[in-house]
Amino acid sequence: MRIVDIIQKKRDAEVLSSEEISFLLDEYMVGNVPDYQVSAFLMATYFNGMNKNELKVFTEKMMNSGDIIDFPGIKKFLIDKHSTGGVGDKTTIALAPIFASFDIGTAKLSGRGLGHTGGTIDKFESIVGFQFPETKEGLIDLVNKCGTGIMGYSDKIVPLDKKLYSLRDVTATVPSIPLIAASIMSKKLAVHADGIILDVKTGSGAFMKSLDDARLLAKTMRDIGDSMGRKVVTCITDMDQPLGFAVGNTLEVIEAIETIKGRGPKEFSYLVETLAAIGLMLKGDVDNLDKGREMVLEIIKSGKPVEMLKMFIENTGGNPKIVDDYNLLPIAKNKLSVKSNNNGYVSAIEAESIGKSAMILGAGRATKEDIIDHGTGIILHKKIGDKVNKGDELATIYYNDSKNLKDSEEMILSAYAFSTDFIEPRDIILEIESV
Amino acid sequence: MRIVDIIQKKRDAEVLSSEEISFLLDEYMVGNVPDYQVSAFLMATYFNGMNKNELKVFTEKMMNSGDIIDFPGIKKFLIDKHSTGGVGDKTTIALAPIFASFDIGTAKLSGRGLGHTGGTIDKFESIVGFQFPETKEGLIDLVNKCGTGIMGYSDKIVPLDKKLYSLRDVTATVPSIPLIAASIMSKKLAVHADGIILDVKTGSGAFMKSLDDARLLAKTMRDIGDSMGRKVVTCITDMDQPLGFAVGNTLEVIEAIETIKGRGPKEFSYLVETLAAIGLMLKGDVDNLDKGREMVLEIIKSGKPVEMLKMFIENTGGNPKIVDDYNLLPIAKNKLSVKSNNNGYVSAIEAESIGKSAMILGAGRATKEDIIDHGTGIILHKKIGDKVNKGDELATIYYNDSKNLKDSEEMILSAYAFSTDFIEPRDIILEIESV
Repeated sequence: MRIVDIIQKKRDAEVLSSEEISFLLDEYMVGNVPDYQVSAFLMATYFNGMNKNELKVFTEKMMNSGDIIDFPGIKKFLIDKHSTGGVGDKTTIALAPIFASFDIGTAKLSGRGLGHTGGTIDKFESIVGFQFPETKEGLIDLVNKCGTGIMGYSDKIVPLDKKLYSLRDVTATVPSIPLIAASIMSKKLAVHADGIILDVKTGSGAFMKSLDDARLLAKTMRDIGDSMGRKVVTCITDMDQPLGFAVGNTLEVIEAIETIKGRGPKEFSYLVETLAAIGLMLKGDVDNLDKGREMVLEIIKSGKPVEMLKMFIENTGGNPKIVDDYNLLPIAKNKLSVKSNNNGYVSAIEAESIGKSAMILGAGRATKEDIIDHGTGIILHKKIGDKVNKGDELATIYYNDSKNLKDSEEMILSAYAFSTDFIEPRDIILEIESV
Repeated sequence: MRIVDIIQKKRDAEVLSSEEISFLLDEYMVGNVPDYQVSAFLMATYFNGMNKNELKVFTEKMMNSGDIIDFPGIKKFLIDKHSTGGVGDKTTIALAPIFASFDIGTAKLSGRGLGHTGGTIDKFESIVGFQFPETKEGLIDLVNKCGTGIMGYSDKIVPLDKKLYSLRDVTATVPSIPLIAASIMSKKLAVHADGIILDVKTGSGAFMKSLDDARLLAKTMRDIGDSMGRKVVTCITDMDQPLGFAVGNTLEVIEAIETIKGRGPKEFSYLVETLAAIGLMLKGDVDNLDKGREMVLEIIKSGKPVEMLKMFIENTGGNPKIVDDYNLLPIAKNKLSVKSNNNGYVSAIEAESIGKSAMILGAGRATKEDIIDHGTGIILHKKIGDKVNKGDELATIYYNDSKNLKDSEEMILSAYAFSTDFIEPRDIILEIESV
């Protein structure tokens, strides 16, 4: 078997055998295949895609390139909820304690963010003293103690994904749906959760700008999960504007806590309730989403999720009192009110610009080396469909350093578009499919 | 400017600016861009091609990556005739002495062969003592003395082509028409001939299997030449069967000499006469091909091309007597007659198989390190359209080592296809276009 023949077959849209895919990835992993052959293969894959079996073998090889995390002895039903990422996405922070309240464990690996705002790991680190487990044993212990098992990615989990991603990043082969699907699913499959919920964001602030692409990514990931005998539900959700009002690490933690207290933003709360209801269906506690959502609303009313979150924070070295007293969280020293120059109904909020305006305040990383300033960020006061008069407050900027303040303000102002007619915002949840 | 953005633009079929192409190639040439980015770019180019300006800049950059060979002080009209390669192509050996007879100089770089039979350089090296010049000065001296200036490629001529070709070879990005065109034209343009004649072979034994691909390659090369202000004529010629009867280095030299003696195979002689007539038109001696061909036939009758060939051989260290006495050339010790198992008209001769059957006898190189056995090869006795009875001689194998003899014979037998009805062979010259 020659690598150049494998590249040629992919270039000519021929189907590769399981042996060919395995050979390519095995040899690449041990350093026998140079990057320049793999990058040509990746570009050919960008153009010609992969069929179901190719993708299954590709993903399986990635999954098995490092440690597999299973949970021996854990009786809890375990869910891995993953979002493809967007601006203001603090879903996991609200969802995990709700799951824990139903004795559903969260078992997932989470990332630090690059660009926009931080990842889930960064957001939790707004809580002083908070520390995620660094080993598989620590993760299992955490799931046992408080139901919420989250840890960061390590080099030992799917190292082949890291190697391939670094190469894709510099060869313009990132936005390939099969490669994205394999990258996400290899990491989900390496963790043995009982059910996988994939939140595929779509819109101006998401990686998948179009609904068609989001659908294709969702289907591709479901197919991979199905081919490996795993329960997978995909939700396609709106990212045409930031999720909720808060963008920035501490601000998002507060909004997530408010949500499990029953006081969250309407559309974000509905998303959390629905994802929780999907979890209840996967576990088998309910047979439809409406019943699931009812149970979720009840448990929120009972206050149990708040207690579960406190327990989680306690078990990770943080101060659980922050849940009751947000003043214990780091908040930026200064605020600036961003006022509208326009009259009309908000017709669009370019989510990526809002993300970047938060990033340049310190809420996110432009390069891997940047240090996050957790207290900075933006609270939006107006969202799509809201009526705005000139001089009304559109947003509040939370900042420590005024260096990029002006740019941040301008980015926010130009992110907003207005219409003279009322614009109905898109539903937060667009489609739900399962295998 | 970032390389990844340049790759992305090519991936998305956007047009690259002259600056972007220059930046990519300049930085690659000095080692600032890694192979893995260039291979991704090449694969994207395989899919999305290049437009006229991209290709002009790409070719120009390649051309200027090494030495330029011009011919100061030479008054002769200089022609560079290049063939895209096929089986039994000994055209240059016959054409250069004819040109020399009309005071047209040949100025070209020639290759050694890989696969099939040798290149023009290898073929001439059948003549004991023969040695091509190794420097630009030696080449100019040779053109001055005998009109025929041929030398091998050196690392100093278009080194970027060598670097890119090595990468293309292992990343399945060789068969891209713009990349092929740029590779050929950069080497043609680096030599300052007054006219360029490109013989684009098409058919089973050629790189361009289909006429459409051959047309596209021819047009792409004309466009590049035109964009650089050079006179270019392209001929698309048949390679659905080997050219002439002889395949193998010494055997081809003899067939070429027979051709300038007026005793060559009909279709090969017509090709040589036509290419020579194109040269006369380019120089301005005639205004149509028929008149040119008449002049060529006359000069062959005069015996001048034979004298010019002798002069060329003398000036390169060989024994000019080989032209009159072929026994002075190395010929394989043994012969095997290959006889037909079929009755009928020859309908096809798979040229690539004939090439390989000669190669395994020692006439060509399977790897760069192989040493050519100049005296080996094949003489075909039947070509497309010929009537064959069972037991008739199809070909004669010339061999020294009987190791691969059986395989060679079987390859020849299976290369032939027969039909009960007469098959008219395709014209040797299919199309001629100029800029």
